[in-house]
Amino acid sequence: MGGLQSWGSVVGFVVQGSTGEFPFLTSSERLEVVSRARQAIPKDKLLIAGSGCESTQATVEMTVSMAQVGADAVMVVTPCYYRGRMSSTALIHHYTKVADLSPIPVVLYNVPANTGLDLPVDAVVTLSQHPNIIGIKDSGGDVTRIGLIVHKTSKQDFQVLAGSVGFLLASYAVGAVGSICGLANVLGAQVCQLERLCLTGQWEAAQMLQHRLIEPNTAVTRRFGIPGLKKTMDWFGYYGGPCRAPLQELSPTEEEALRLDFSNHGWL
Amino acid sequence: MGGLQSWGSVVGFVVQGSTGEFPFLTSSERLEVVSRARQAIPKDKLLIAGSGCESTQATVEMTVSMAQVGADAVMVVTPCYYRGRMSSTALIHHYTKVADLSPIPVVLYNVPANTGLDLPVDAVVTLSQHPNIIGIKDSGGDVTRIGLIVHKTSKQDFQVLAGSVGFLLASYAVGAVGSICGLANVLGAQVCQLERLCLTGQWEAAQMLQHRLIEPNTAVTRRFGIPGLKKTMDWFGYYGGPCRAPLQELSPTEEEALRLDFSNHGWL
Amino acid sequence: MGGLQSWGSVVGFVVQGSTGEFPFLTSSERLEVVSRARQAIPKDKLLIAGSGCESTQATVEMTVSMAQVGADAVMVVTPCYYRGRMSSTALIHHYTKVADLSPIPVVLYNVPANTGLDLPVDAVVTLSQHPNIIGIKDSGGDVTRIGLIVHKTSKQDFQVLAGSVGFLLASYAVGAVGSICGLANVLGAQVCQLERLCLTGQWEAAQMLQHRLIEPNTAVTRRFGIPGLKKTMDWFGYYGGPCRAPLQELSPTEEEALRLDFSNHGWL
Amino acid sequence: MGGLQSWGSVVGFVVQGSTGEFPFLTSSERLEVVSRARQAIPKDKLLIAGSGCESTQATVEMTVSMAQVGADAVMVVTPCYYRGRMSSTALIHHYTKVADLSPIPVVLYNVPANTGLDLPVDAVVTLSQHPNIIGIKDSGGDVTRIGLIVHKTSKQDFQVLAGSVGFLLASYAVGAVGSICGLANVLGAQVCQLERLCLTGQWEAAQMLQHRLIEPNTAVTRRFGIPGLKKTMDWFGYYGGPCRAPLQELSPTEEEALRLDFSNHGWL
Repeated sequence: MGGLQSWGSVVGFVVQGSTGEFPFLTSSERLEVVSRARQAIPKDKLLIAGSGCESTQATVEMTVSMAQVGADAVMVVTPCYYRGRMSSTALIHHYTKVADLSPIPVVLYNVPANTGLDLPVDAVVTLSQHPNIIGIKDSGGDVTRIGLIVHKTSKQDFQVLAGSVGFLLASYAVGAVGSICGLANVLGAQVCQLERLCLTGQWEAAQMLQHRLIEPNTAVTRRFGIPGLKKTMDWFGYYGGPCRAPLQELSPTEEEALRLDFSNHGWL
Repeated sequence: MGGLQSWGSVVGFVVQGSTGEFPFLTSSERLEVVSRARQAIPKDKLLIAGSGCESTQATVEMTVSMAQVGADAVMVVTPCYYRGRMSSTALIHHYTKVADLSPIPVVLYNVPANTGLDLPVDAVVTLSQHPNIIGIKDSGGDVTRIGLIVHKTSKQDFQVLAGSVGFLLASYAVGAVGSICGLANVLGAQVCQLERLCLTGQWEAAQMLQHRLIEPNTAVTRRFGIPGLKKTMDWFGYYGGPCRAPLQELSPTEEEALRLDFSNHGWL
Repeated sequence: MGGLQSWGSVVGFVVQGSTGEFPFLTSSERLEVVSRARQAIPKDKLLIAGSGCESTQATVEMTVSMAQVGADAVMVVTPCYYRGRMSSTALIHHYTKVADLSPIPVVLYNVPANTGLDLPVDAVVTLSQHPNIIGIKDSGGDVTRIGLIVHKTSKQDFQVLAGSVGFLLASYAVGAVGSICGLANVLGAQVCQLERLCLTGQWEAAQMLQHRLIEPNTAVTRRFGIPGLKKTMDWFGYYGGPCRAPLQELSPTEEEALRLDFSNHGWL
Repeated sequence: MGGLQSWGSVVGFVVQGSTGEFPFLTSSERLEVVSRARQAIPKDKLLIAGSGCESTQATVEMTVSMAQVGADAVMVVTPCYYRGRMSSTALIHHYTKVADLSPIPVVLYNVPANTGLDLPVDAVVTLSQHPNIIGIKDSGGDVTRIGLIVHKTSKQDFQVLAGSVGFLLASYAVGAVGSICGLANVLGAQVCQLERLCLTGQWEAAQMLQHRLIEPNTAVTRRFGIPGLKKTMDWFGYYGGPCRAPLQELSPTEEEALRLDFSNHGWL
C-alpha cells in the first residue's frame, strides 16, 4: 500500500502497487485486498487500485473488477515481460483499450526499476489526451523527463505524480502536483509535511526535510525493498508482517544498516 | 511452444515458454494448453511445461497442476519483478521449494532479455545438486558462463541446454547437451541437423549451417519477437495465428525485413 | 566551452569540458586553448580548465600546466577506461593526489553518459573534506543523488553544480548553487535568467522557463551532441565551426529535427 | 602486452592493448615501449601495436609512428568518449581514414567492457572490405555476434580473433582463426595448447582445458583487472610490476581470491 499525497495531505491510498506485492497475489486475492481496504478507508479518501497485468485483456478484466469492489481509480503498470516489443505503439494501444473499457479513471504507472522499461514520453503525451486517463505515477527519478511530461501535457487535465520520496521536492519544483510513495507507509506525516512546505513556497524548510528523507526512502525501496519497508513498519508501530517468497527477510546485518538509515536522520 | 532437441532429434516439446506467451494466459488457460498439447504429442516425446510464476507458492501450485495434466517436467523461469532482491539466496530458496514439492523434474530457465536478471552461477551450481533439478535452459547467450556452468555441475547429472539457436554450436562446443529453441517452430529439421552435425563431430558443416541460422534466429527472437515467429510460421505452412495484445502485429516494413532475414540465407 | 552560472549571472567559463572536445586535442593544444581563452576572458570572470586525463600523473601534470597558463581552477573528469576497477578507493586516491599537488582549486566532474561510471556518493563526501576540492559538476541528472550530495557535504564549503540545463531548476530546489551547462553556449542569457528566477524564489516563472529549455538542451547534448551544439551556435550568430573526426556533421534530417527542438519552444 | 595465438602457437605479440595500460602512457612512452619490445621480440614474431586514440588525426599519427618504430600491424580500439555519436557512419569514417593512411595493416579492436560500445556488425562488414584492414579482435564475448561476423566477412581475407580466453574454444567453433588474450601473459603455453586442440579437432580435450581456464581468465580481466594480472605474473616467475595510478594494488582479500581462482583449477 502507498499513500497518495496531494495538496499537502493524504487524499487517498494506493492498494496493490509494487509495495503491495501484487505480483505475488492471485486475482481473487488482489480483489479481496482492495475490497477489504475499501471498508477500512474513510469514504472521503480515494482508493486507487493497481490493476495492471501482462495482457491487455487481463488488465481490462482486473480493472472492471477493481471498480466493482470499490476502487475509485486504477493504476496500471506497464506490461514488461516482452519489453523488446513494448513500443510506444503497443503501449498506446494497451492503455487506450484499458481506459476505453474502464468504468473508473486510469493512472499510468512507470516504474523502470521493476519493469526494465520507460513508458516513452511521446506515449504519455498521446495518452494524456484520453478523457479517462488522468495522470501518471512516475517512479523513475529522472526529473528532466518529469519536467518534460508536465510541460507537454499542460493543456490536458493530467496529473503528474512523483513515484518516490527521493525526488519529491524536485518533482514539485518542475510541476508535479502530488506523489504516491512507499515511504508514506512509515513516515506519512513527514511526506505530507514536505508537500505542504512545497505548496506554500517554504522551499528552504522543504529542502531540509527532503534531505533527511532521501536515505530512509532509498532504504525501503532500492536498497532493502519490501522486506525493508515491512521491518520498518514494525518499528514504527504498524503491522508490516512477513513477505511472500521468494522475497526473503532481511539478515541481521541488513537490518542494522536499515536502522542506521533511519536513525542517522533522526527518525528512530 | 519450442522444440527440445537433444541427441540430434526432437525428443520433446516445451509448452508455455516465453514464445508460448505464458504471461498472457490465465492459470486455467495455461493448464488447458498443456493438457491439449499432451493429447497431440506422441507418448514417446517429452512434454516440458513452463510453470514459473512470480511467487513461490503460485509456482508450486502451477507445477503440481502441470504434472496432473500430463507434463513430464516443468521449466521454471526466474521470478523477476522484484529483481533488486532476487539474490542467490532468494532464488535458491525459490527453486528448492519448487523442486521439493514437484512430482516431476524441474528445469531452471534463465532468460535475461525478458527478466532483466541472470540466475547467478553459484545458485545454479547449488541447485544442480538437488535430485529433482535436472538441468537449465540458458537463453542469455554468454558462452563463457555456459562453459562455466557445465564445468561446475559436471559431477551432477545436470543437463545444460542452449536457450537459443544463435549460440547452439558454441554451446555444444563447451559442453551443452541439447537445446530448447524458438526457431525450431519453423526450422525444426535444420536445428536437429545442426545438433547431429555437432554430435558427430562434423564441425565444418555444423559451422556453415550455424552461420545461416543466426540472422533468422535473431529475427524471430530479439528483433521481431513473437509476432515475427508467428508470421514466419504462417509462411512455413504452420499456424502462427494472432498475438495477444499488447503485442502488435508486424508492420509491412518489419515484415519485409523479416522475410529478408530468412530469404537471404536460403530459407525462403 | 561552457558557461559557469551562479548567483544568476555568468561568473566564469569552463574551457575543455566535454563540449570542448578535450579528448581530441593534444596536450599542447589543450593548454593553448586555455591560454588564449584567458586572454579573451575578462579578468573578473573565472576560467575553469578541464585537466582530467586517464592517469593520475598525467592529470597532475596537466593541472599544474593549466594553472601556469592562467586557469583559476581545474575541473577533473573521472578516469574511466578501466571502469571496472574505478572503486571509491581508487577514485579517492586519484583526486586526493591531484588536489594535493594542484596550485589551484579542483572541481570534481561526474558525467556518466561519457564515462560510463558514477563517482560514488561516499567518495564525493570524503573528497569534499579536502581543502583544495571546492565542488562538483554533476551531469548525471539523478536529482536524488544531487540532493544527497548537497546534504552530506553541507558542513563543508563545497559547491554542487548542475551539469546540464535539463535538471537545473530541480537541482537548485535541492540545494545546488550553480551550474555549468553546454546550452549556455547558445542560450546563455536564458540560463542566467533561469538561475535568477530560482535564486529570487520566482518558482512559477522559473518552471515555465525550465520547461522551454528541456528539449533544446537534450538536442545539444544527448540527442545531437557536439555537432548539434556547433550547428546551433552558427544559427545564433556565434562561431560553432567544424567538429574533429570521428565526430560527424549532422545530416540534413538531423539538422531539421534540431531546428524544431529550438523553434518549437520559441528560440528560433 | 598480450600474446597473439594462431595456428596453435604464439605468432606474435600485442603491445599496448588494454592490458598494456596504454591510456596511462604518454605518446612518447607508447612509442618507446613498442620500440623496445621490437628489439626483444624475435624477428619472426609479429608485433602488433595498439595505436588507438580518441581523435582520428591522433590515431593516424600514432599509427604512422608505430610503423616507424617497428610495428608489423596496429590494433585500433574504438573511440568512445562521445559514444552517443559513435554511429556506424562515424566509426566507418574513422577506421577508413586510419587504414587509408597507415603504412601497415590495421586490426579493429572491440572491447565494450572498457569502451561502453560495440562496433556494429554492419560497420565491421563494411570495413572488412578495406584492403588494409585485416581482422578484428573482439573481446565482447558475444559468440552469436562473432559467428555472424565470421559469416558476413567470409568472402574477404579477414581474420576474426577471440579477444579473451573465456570464449576461445567457442569462437574457434564458429570460425575464429586466432586469439589475442591477456591470460597468455601467464598461461601462454596453455592457451596455445587449447588452440592446437581446437585446430586438430580434439574437441573433448579442448573442452576440458577450456573449462579450467574460464575462472583464471575472468580473474585477470573482469574481476581483478590489470592489478590481478600483474600479481599473477609475479607468481608465475615473470615481472608484473606495479600498476599506474589510479589503478590500485589488490587488497590481501582480493589477492587470496585471485590465488584460489588459479589453484582451484590446478594452475598454482
